[in-house]
Amino acid sequence: MKKLLLILLMGLTLPVLSQNQTDQAMIKKIFDEALENGESYDMLRYLTKRIGGRLSGSPEAAAAVEWSRQQMEAYGFDRVFLQEVMVPHWIRGEKEIGRIVNSRKLGSQSVNITALGNSVGTGPAGTVGQVVEVQDFQELAKLGRANIEGKIVFFNRPMDPKLIDTFSAYGGASGQRGSGPSEAAKYGAIGAVVRSLGSFQDDIPHTGGTRYALNTPKIPAVAISTNDADLLSNLLKDDPELGFYFETHAQMLPDVLSYNVVGEIKGSEFPDEIIVVGGHLDSWDLAEGAHDDGAGCVQSIEVLRIMKSLGYKPKRTIRAVMFMNEENGLRGGRKYAALAEENGENHIAAMESDRGGFLPIGFGISGTPAQQEKLIGWKNLFEPYGIYQFKKGGGGADISPLRTQDVPLIGYLPDSQRYFKYHHTGIDNFEVVNQRELELGAAAMASVIYLIDQHGL
Amino acid sequence: MKKLLLILLMGLTLPVLSQNQTDQAMIKKIFDEALENGESYDMLRYLTKRIGGRLSGSPEAAAAVEWSRQQMEAYGFDRVFLQEVMVPHWIRGEKEIGRIVNSRKLGSQSVNITALGNSVGTGPAGTVGQVVEVQDFQELAKLGRANIEGKIVFFNRPMDPKLIDTFSAYGGASGQRGSGPSEAAKYGAIGAVVRSLGSFQDDIPHTGGTRYALNTPKIPAVAISTNDADLLSNLLKDDPELGFYFETHAQMLPDVLSYNVVGEIKGSEFPDEIIVVGGHLDSWDLAEGAHDDGAGCVQSIEVLRIMKSLGYKPKRTIRAVMFMNEENGLRGGRKYAALAEENGENHIAAMESDRGGFLPIGFGISGTPAQQEKLIGWKNLFEPYGIYQFKKGGGGADISPLRTQDVPLIGYLPDSQRYFKYHHTGIDNFEVVNQRELELGAAAMASVIYLIDQHGL
Repeated sequence: MKKLLLILLMGLTLPVLSQNQTDQAMIKKIFDEALENGESYDMLRYLTKRIGGRLSGSPEAAAAVEWSRQQMEAYGFDRVFLQEVMVPHWIRGEKEIGRIVNSRKLGSQSVNITALGNSVGTGPAGTVGQVVEVQDFQELAKLGRANIEGKIVFFNRPMDPKLIDTFSAYGGASGQRGSGPSEAAKYGAIGAVVRSLGSFQDDIPHTGGTRYALNTPKIPAVAISTNDADLLSNLLKDDPELGFYFETHAQMLPDVLSYNVVGEIKGSEFPDEIIVVGGHLDSWDLAEGAHDDGAGCVQSIEVLRIMKSLGYKPKRTIRAVMFMNEENGLRGGRKYAALAEENGENHIAAMESDRGGFLPIGFGISGTPAQQEKLIGWKNLFEPYGIYQFKKGGGGADISPLRTQDVPLIGYLPDSQRYFKYHHTGIDNFEVVNQRELELGAAAMASVIYLIDQHGL
Repeated sequence: MKKLLLILLMGLTLPVLSQNQTDQAMIKKIFDEALENGESYDMLRYLTKRIGGRLSGSPEAAAAVEWSRQQMEAYGFDRVFLQEVMVPHWIRGEKEIGRIVNSRKLGSQSVNITALGNSVGTGPAGTVGQVVEVQDFQELAKLGRANIEGKIVFFNRPMDPKLIDTFSAYGGASGQRGSGPSEAAKYGAIGAVVRSLGSFQDDIPHTGGTRYALNTPKIPAVAISTNDADLLSNLLKDDPELGFYFETHAQMLPDVLSYNVVGEIKGSEFPDEIIVVGGHLDSWDLAEGAHDDGAGCVQSIEVLRIMKSLGYKPKRTIRAVMFMNEENGLRGGRKYAALAEENGENHIAAMESDRGGFLPIGFGISGTPAQQEKLIGWKNLFEPYGIYQFKKGGGGADISPLRTQDVPLIGYLPDSQRYFKYHHTGIDNFEVVNQRELELGAAAMASVIYLIDQHGL
């Protein structure tokens, strides 16, 4: 009787164990392949060292489209195709100049600045004016037109170093870059200088997109390095009449035809159920866009390459998508979602990697509670790889337009401590990406995609 | 009655909650202090950029002793003192040369090598001989004296890239560096070339100590970069008679007087119960010893600085110990333990940071099961900081001699993915340490030291 009970119990529990063991074994194979034969790092080398920075509308962005198309063709994915999308074409122009101008002496002091993306240039005459420092829009409103008109507003709120998740610190300070220039212009400011959104004290300015509000004068806007922001702030304490001069040559040109690049492996059982994994192909122009977001692109291609290389035939259709124009428009992400809707495609999940090629720590998911619980339930499979954080909430800019179609969105989470040293700077180059971290990230992403393919979401 | 029961229950549970909340609040303060006002990074800048590499017995090692003594005095620790210790004085001498010599042609090819620590030099004449490649000591024994005598043994076992914990991969390959040269000499080899213990394919050789066995000829020994190890191995397949030439100028000089440097804050309740936190002050000579182990030293000083800065008065005596000569002798660690025994000191715990200044992921503990459970029980306090791995087993080389006195040993665990890019190389410089990672590590260490101080171990 006891023996029979035991056999019955085994019969009840074995299938569950067995699927879990199959998953464990497959995930081990995925990590082994990524670490032993991985190609993400070599792909990244090409994209960064051979092509380099690839701002939307630039020749380099066109090269990146063609490179990723050829790369995915060469891997023999079932289908590789382009999606046309018109993108903004902003150019930085000549080298920028920034100077703090002492009100009481002649003489001025050079500082490290860079024009904000989408901003208008000052032209060769530059913009010069008295500086008014503010921490936030409340302070700006309090000062009002009387104190702002004809001046340059200096937004100097730092990222909070005490926040462990540096993206939270970024979120707490990024409004001054995105909306600051237009907010300042509402009160008659003639220019905006924004403290760089960086986690570290250094001399490196961080660019990034600003968004001009409708019916508001477009004023030139620059980011200033954190060291120089502190310098400017300290000098202002001593000399409240301090002036600032800057010269930028940015221009917004007419839109340009560009593309999202999509590679897919067709599902063997449910070909109409699509799982997307992607990153954005465009980058800022100051460096090679290695962490942001070359890493996410090559990891996404690597997810499909690993599956092919292991001879894994997915049940569902798996797509690697290189989105165009995340940095200054999100046109590619919007276009992808619009086409999905237009074509009646059924996306069962979308994942994005756009937080750099750092050590994987987890995933965040936006979706129904059931979808969230399901993903979080896979957590134990990742502990052998040092990956512990499976959280509710998350996604990515490029996949966010899919949310209105009720697609669950998954954000791949690498460790965030180093990201805002490189993000949008002149040092986001191949050399600052570590091969093992990049590969472990690709493996973690491939493992979650595999689990969704096997078990749905 | 129900109300009474509730009050009784509250009375029973409140104190426990309260202590946990106190601990949570204190740990938050520690992390805030480290991230907002931390000084570990500035300390590391001095130790690496001003002093630099500090091999045992070198003038730089003496500078590092004096710097750490002054630094801890300046922080006003209750007592700062030196412990005399005689250390080996190995010097590398002039620049090393390595060449692959084709047996069939004149001509040779330069490769990147560096002498292993403690090794004898070849002198200006160099050592030249036919190369025999082996993967391990079994293969060496099988080849035997007949195939080894008069030749140069090339140990080419790579670190296993599939192991997630790179220290496991290191452990699986490091025997060929530590014991390889003497093992080869037993069969009459005239030199040893060891594949660098690195996780990456690059041109950078990794030095590290070798240990000559007693009654065995001391043969010159070098590490070769992973790229050049592959090159050599591939050329050997084509030309089994291939020769190798190398020239090193290393020498072991007479022992030199040096010091461990100890700073302590005296315990207010149990001054005789000592908690140690330390790293090693010496480093290899090829670079600045930033990750190995400048990071561990400045983090250990920072633990005490944070406590003082927060006005925290420890119950037990807390010591920061800068151990001397971990790299090529462990004399400082042995001396510290011997003095502890001689002086009848009661060490209740010892922690070491010697795995680089990377992102904190956890702690490992060697001790009684009860001690292990106690430490692991604090795990939940660290999850808000992304620190999840509390493990049985662990410690550190310098504190290991304390184990015979039944002191529980705790190894601080930063993420290991990048360590073996820099370890023992010419690029282990200040610039490859990230400020936030270093600070988070110091905060994690300080938090565990605080918990041990409060609750014992």
